[in-house]
Amino acid sequence: MAELTDAQVALLRSTSFGAVATLKQDGTPQTSIVWVDTDGEHVVFNTRNDRAKARNLRRDPRVSVSVFDGDSHYRYFEVEGLAELVDDGANEHIHELSRKYNGIDFHTPENRVTVRVRAERIFDYQVSE
Amino acid sequence: MAELTDAQVALLRSTSFGAVATLKQDGTPQTSIVWVDTDGEHVVFNTRNDRAKARNLRRDPRVSVSVFDGDSHYRYFEVEGLAELVDDGANEHIHELSRKYNGIDFHTPENRVTVRVRAERIFDYQVSE
Repeated sequence: MAELTDAQVALLRSTSFGAVATLKQDGTPQTSIVWVDTDGEHVVFNTRNDRAKARNLRRDPRVSVSVFDGDSHYRYFEVEGLAELVDDGANEHIHELSRKYNGIDFHTPENRVTVRVRAERIFDYQVSE
Repeated sequence: MAELTDAQVALLRSTSFGAVATLKQDGTPQTSIVWVDTDGEHVVFNTRNDRAKARNLRRDPRVSVSVFDGDSHYRYFEVEGLAELVDDGANEHIHELSRKYNGIDFHTPENRVTVRVRAERIFDYQVSE
């Protein structure tokens, strides 16, 4: 498992965003933008069980997330790895994310799932480098 | 081919960013953040020929791009489609993008390729909807 640097952990703890790619049934990529967080080891995000990315990840856990600063998008890092889907505490987890980004509880904390990404590879990048 | 709405064209013409997913040889997704633009019909971006995403797209043109506002990341749209790689004029194209985002010519306009995405499906989203 690849380790996040202190700077990457700090970026994940700030109000950064993640661009997530998952694979559809036919292997086509699908992307979405999500709130992100970390337990210090994994990139963590949260979605709804009926969203394409949750369905995709239950079928094929291969995932890539590019994490970028919400203010300056030029430096970012990409994590490639495998997703673990965690139902326990996921409705509370979306409240935590909502409080981090918006300062208030989430509007409809239902049917959520926490996605924990086990990083196999991590790359630092810069837009149009 | 799916058509971009006027609002989506306007977002592409602003200093928005794209989260691009391509497929590695083993089918694993890879993501990166890019400058974007449009000819009115396609999502267009530019990369270097020796970058993973250019190599990936020459092998497998399936691509997904989520286009988000550089200031407010909450509304975005996703384009799924096939990439066409255009070598002609690509070094001039990175200058155009650099002028749009930074107001100046690009530092090293070499070995570039323009990627034009033929949209098969377009979806409007909102972060943590």
